[in-house]
Amino acid sequence: MVRIGILGGAGYTAGELLRILVNHPDADIVFVNSSSNAGNMITDVHEGLLGETNMCFTDSMPFEAVDVVFFCFGHGKSKQFIEENKIPDNVKIIDLAQDFRLKAPGNDYIYGLPEINRAEIAKAEHVANPGCFATCIQLGLLPAAKMGLITEDVTVNAITGSTGAGQKPVGTTHFSWRSGNMSIYKAFEHQHVPEIKQGLRQLQGHLDAEIDFIPYRGDFARGIFATLVVKTDVPVDDIVAGYKEFYADEPFTHYSDKPINLKQVVNTNKALVHCEKHGNKLLVTSCIDNLLKGASGQAVQNMNIMFGLDEKSGLRLKGSGF
Amino acid sequence: MVRIGILGGAGYTAGELLRILVNHPDADIVFVNSSSNAGNMITDVHEGLLGETNMCFTDSMPFEAVDVVFFCFGHGKSKQFIEENKIPDNVKIIDLAQDFRLKAPGNDYIYGLPEINRAEIAKAEHVANPGCFATCIQLGLLPAAKMGLITEDVTVNAITGSTGAGQKPVGTTHFSWRSGNMSIYKAFEHQHVPEIKQGLRQLQGHLDAEIDFIPYRGDFARGIFATLVVKTDVPVDDIVAGYKEFYADEPFTHYSDKPINLKQVVNTNKALVHCEKHGNKLLVTSCIDNLLKGASGQAVQNMNIMFGLDEKSGLRLKGSGF
Amino acid sequence: MVRIGILGGAGYTAGELLRILVNHPDADIVFVNSSSNAGNMITDVHEGLLGETNMCFTDSMPFEAVDVVFFCFGHGKSKQFIEENKIPDNVKIIDLAQDFRLKAPGNDYIYGLPEINRAEIAKAEHVANPGCFATCIQLGLLPAAKMGLITEDVTVNAITGSTGAGQKPVGTTHFSWRSGNMSIYKAFEHQHVPEIKQGLRQLQGHLDAEIDFIPYRGDFARGIFATLVVKTDVPVDDIVAGYKEFYADEPFTHYSDKPINLKQVVNTNKALVHCEKHGNKLLVTSCIDNLLKGASGQAVQNMNIMFGLDEKSGLRLKGSGF
Amino acid sequence: MVRIGILGGAGYTAGELLRILVNHPDADIVFVNSSSNAGNMITDVHEGLLGETNMCFTDSMPFEAVDVVFFCFGHGKSKQFIEENKIPDNVKIIDLAQDFRLKAPGNDYIYGLPEINRAEIAKAEHVANPGCFATCIQLGLLPAAKMGLITEDVTVNAITGSTGAGQKPVGTTHFSWRSGNMSIYKAFEHQHVPEIKQGLRQLQGHLDAEIDFIPYRGDFARGIFATLVVKTDVPVDDIVAGYKEFYADEPFTHYSDKPINLKQVVNTNKALVHCEKHGNKLLVTSCIDNLLKGASGQAVQNMNIMFGLDEKSGLRLKGSGF
Repeated sequence: MVRIGILGGAGYTAGELLRILVNHPDADIVFVNSSSNAGNMITDVHEGLLGETNMCFTDSMPFEAVDVVFFCFGHGKSKQFIEENKIPDNVKIIDLAQDFRLKAPGNDYIYGLPEINRAEIAKAEHVANPGCFATCIQLGLLPAAKMGLITEDVTVNAITGSTGAGQKPVGTTHFSWRSGNMSIYKAFEHQHVPEIKQGLRQLQGHLDAEIDFIPYRGDFARGIFATLVVKTDVPVDDIVAGYKEFYADEPFTHYSDKPINLKQVVNTNKALVHCEKHGNKLLVTSCIDNLLKGASGQAVQNMNIMFGLDEKSGLRLKGSGF
Repeated sequence: MVRIGILGGAGYTAGELLRILVNHPDADIVFVNSSSNAGNMITDVHEGLLGETNMCFTDSMPFEAVDVVFFCFGHGKSKQFIEENKIPDNVKIIDLAQDFRLKAPGNDYIYGLPEINRAEIAKAEHVANPGCFATCIQLGLLPAAKMGLITEDVTVNAITGSTGAGQKPVGTTHFSWRSGNMSIYKAFEHQHVPEIKQGLRQLQGHLDAEIDFIPYRGDFARGIFATLVVKTDVPVDDIVAGYKEFYADEPFTHYSDKPINLKQVVNTNKALVHCEKHGNKLLVTSCIDNLLKGASGQAVQNMNIMFGLDEKSGLRLKGSGF
Repeated sequence: MVRIGILGGAGYTAGELLRILVNHPDADIVFVNSSSNAGNMITDVHEGLLGETNMCFTDSMPFEAVDVVFFCFGHGKSKQFIEENKIPDNVKIIDLAQDFRLKAPGNDYIYGLPEINRAEIAKAEHVANPGCFATCIQLGLLPAAKMGLITEDVTVNAITGSTGAGQKPVGTTHFSWRSGNMSIYKAFEHQHVPEIKQGLRQLQGHLDAEIDFIPYRGDFARGIFATLVVKTDVPVDDIVAGYKEFYADEPFTHYSDKPINLKQVVNTNKALVHCEKHGNKLLVTSCIDNLLKGASGQAVQNMNIMFGLDEKSGLRLKGSGF
Repeated sequence: MVRIGILGGAGYTAGELLRILVNHPDADIVFVNSSSNAGNMITDVHEGLLGETNMCFTDSMPFEAVDVVFFCFGHGKSKQFIEENKIPDNVKIIDLAQDFRLKAPGNDYIYGLPEINRAEIAKAEHVANPGCFATCIQLGLLPAAKMGLITEDVTVNAITGSTGAGQKPVGTTHFSWRSGNMSIYKAFEHQHVPEIKQGLRQLQGHLDAEIDFIPYRGDFARGIFATLVVKTDVPVDDIVAGYKEFYADEPFTHYSDKPINLKQVVNTNKALVHCEKHGNKLLVTSCIDNLLKGASGQAVQNMNIMFGLDEKSGLRLKGSGF
């Protein structure tokens, strides 16, 4: 059994992590820390867990009793936490925030996208779990990068569910505003673009192209659906063959011969990818559940890899379907 | 032209009032006061009005320049405002809050439900606009009350859209929580029950029955759909005849021979009512748009009556249909 | 391993059954029959299973190779199928339709509600899986029946998701009509009332009260949320104690001390029940996922019981939460 | 009063037309023809009109009694109808289908986009009402075309509501499938691209660029939200100035200085357009209500122009806001 501590336990990603881990056959949740909710029942916050756990949030962090901690803090707080707290060397860390995703001198965190870093993750002490958009977009583009196809600016349009905006109620997550609505934000300036480029460069080497990314606020709670357009003269059959080969052995990421839709992946750790070609434009569609393959599901996948467990352990999730 | 001032201009009911009044042929919006937004464009808050008005919110309240003011404050603030401010006697008041809805010594506000108080509203200086649930439920029950049918406790279940919860984002209006969700609140204790009973008593005289009202939070933005069950041995044909007669001349409230659904009234000032009988149980369904017939639309209807205008002026609204 | 055959494999309940069974540790899906889809990939219809199964629908029904068959036919077709086909005596049957739910001479099907029939189910060869509304409403009322509280007509209002209406697109499941809409159907005449009464009578004995059930079409895909009002003078503490005791050992049905909301159970096999008292009116709220505890999840729960498996096997489902 | 006949009266666009015209001060609806619904109440089909009209669908088409007919047929049937029926020369035609939108020898229909063809529409006997996507996308690109900016392939992503898919229930408009879902269709091959190019060429002359259009099925009932990316070195201030000038006098199409969202236009005849520049990429967002500015609203706007009425007559619609 992997003994687990969770920090920042009251947010969305922690809740999703708990919903996975309470049923994980090889996981033992030792503590769930939340400074703002210490002493309260976990089900007071993550109310869907009623009947599945009687644990309370703690204000203590008994690191000596765990094998791994998940950082479910808001962005920027992971770094701060590590500076202010001593975590024993033998405790592995999986950080769900963006603090350690970009390679930098002194950053020993492995970027936790198993599709490109599985071997490194298996040996890692510290893993930086990828961003939700970054996961969906990279999984759509990585096989193209491996084939060296990304030579011109890539057009990316991706729509995210409201859970991507976090737990705090704000104007753009008010039901009255968001239901039946559609809008964009941070166009061409989203913070996930650097990690996307870093991932593509890992496979293609030199990358002299922009990722022109327009994020949309979707009228749904869960998931990301992306379209990606790459200019290339390579025949579609070769491209599809490359994509299929790339994902042939992946447990969660699959190439679909048919057009895909978001609900195929909602409430699963799966990613689906589909390609079609129109003239010299390759159109890739990809989709994930932003809270699972885009956050807590991938974090557990990384944990499984880090601890030598079956990679699918605890992640054979029934898709919602509807 | 009726010259209009609006107080509390940044909330949902004020926004809906403005969306109506900008196209009202007999209305002249003189000022829209909002202490928190003074100086800002109205379209900064009520963004859907872009292209329809260039007005700004004011911090002044030039009562001398208006014929009527609409109070769009939160509940409780209307009373306080009147105590602290002098409104000229020749300026009529329509209060959208609940402060003056219940008859009490010294309260000269007429309860603004035209279906029972049209003549009094026409002569009124001050009108208390009914609550949204109270409107929907009374319109479903008033003809029964007139026939004296309400002799046992009435079962009321009514589902409201998220706009009924106001503009401030909170947990239960967070899109991630509310979409695809269903819940109840304030069961048997909703604050609209007293005004419902007051209205029923006006027609039936003695009322010795409870209104057992369960309000539901609906997974939609606009509207209220209610079911009301009354025990009675009166034959259904007589009841339907009574309902039809009661609403025969109403401009906005209609009896439907067929079962009704909420979208028939969304974005209109209409109320629909339908009756069926099962054994000795009369089942009435009624529905309104909570922001229109349940708030700002009815407020304009009252204004039209108070100023001798065509009652439908400005309220011939295209229903959204979908 | 329990060897499984599924008949009527292209509908919603079969799809949900498959989404459960592909991850069930003790289940082996031998064939999925669908006359209309024979030869097609299962993922052509249940597209969310992509990456989880490569099976095709069959037109054969090799009963000799299975231990249990699930009937996922439309209502009325199970009876017809049994008349026209010979199923070996050693093959157990779980029927998801309503054909055998009501006790009748010659009907050897056990009503598959484990909360009241666990022992009989364990010995049963044939199980009639309860209806979705019937499950949600009975679970809300059974402890009251056990306490003998149901002496006057019970008011039931219950809202169902669109998946309750089946797979065939019709007017009332058209997105343009249903989104943001609310309506009722079959008020006081729903076909599940007889099985509800049968269940209540099993615990209370004589039942001389009506179940006044108003079903609503909800603006969501999954789930049923019900309110149930019972007149009683028994103190609320005694009632709550009775409810808690009744469900104390249940693996999926839980009493909640706090008010409940539908999303607590969506995508799980759980049922939640909560009680509050207002005067002499007991208000019970209950909710389930209509496709899981209301259909395929409960069917698997019954299978687990029939074959002596851990009752939760394959049913430790991650709730969608959002 | 303009006397009006409507053909194909049972579909979505006819319903929306009726919802507008029942309140149009200068319109007299003479007949609403529907072969499939002849004799039925209009409110049997367009149920939201209850209380607003008592008309029935006709099987007759008394063209001599009308000044204009609206064709609300499915695509392809307008041409067929005209071949098989004689419409008097003095009766104007507004065709909402795509049959006559593209210029061709013998096609005397004026393309009914007032923003570029107002003068021609005013003199026209026959008008081809633009497509919904075509309207939204052209209104986003036309000022750029006028400035001659479209020299490279334009990236268009546009999301449409379910009403765009018509009234007939199909799999992709089933609520269970579409709610919370996202998908694309007809990528790079949508039938509106030729009319978009035709409109752009009208302003820019030579157009040697593709419109790379990806349409999305949105999880909402009404509206189209589009993003359009044009490569250009022209400074953003000049571009914005050009856009503002282009739409300065338009009654329904407005340039917004702030980012836009779909709900600003839902249930109105408005189009909103906003520009921002990122490097050498001009990002235009535009949105409309697909049933109004994208269909029936624009049809009435065209009627108003053709008959010399106030262009906004009958089209001062209260936006739904929520």
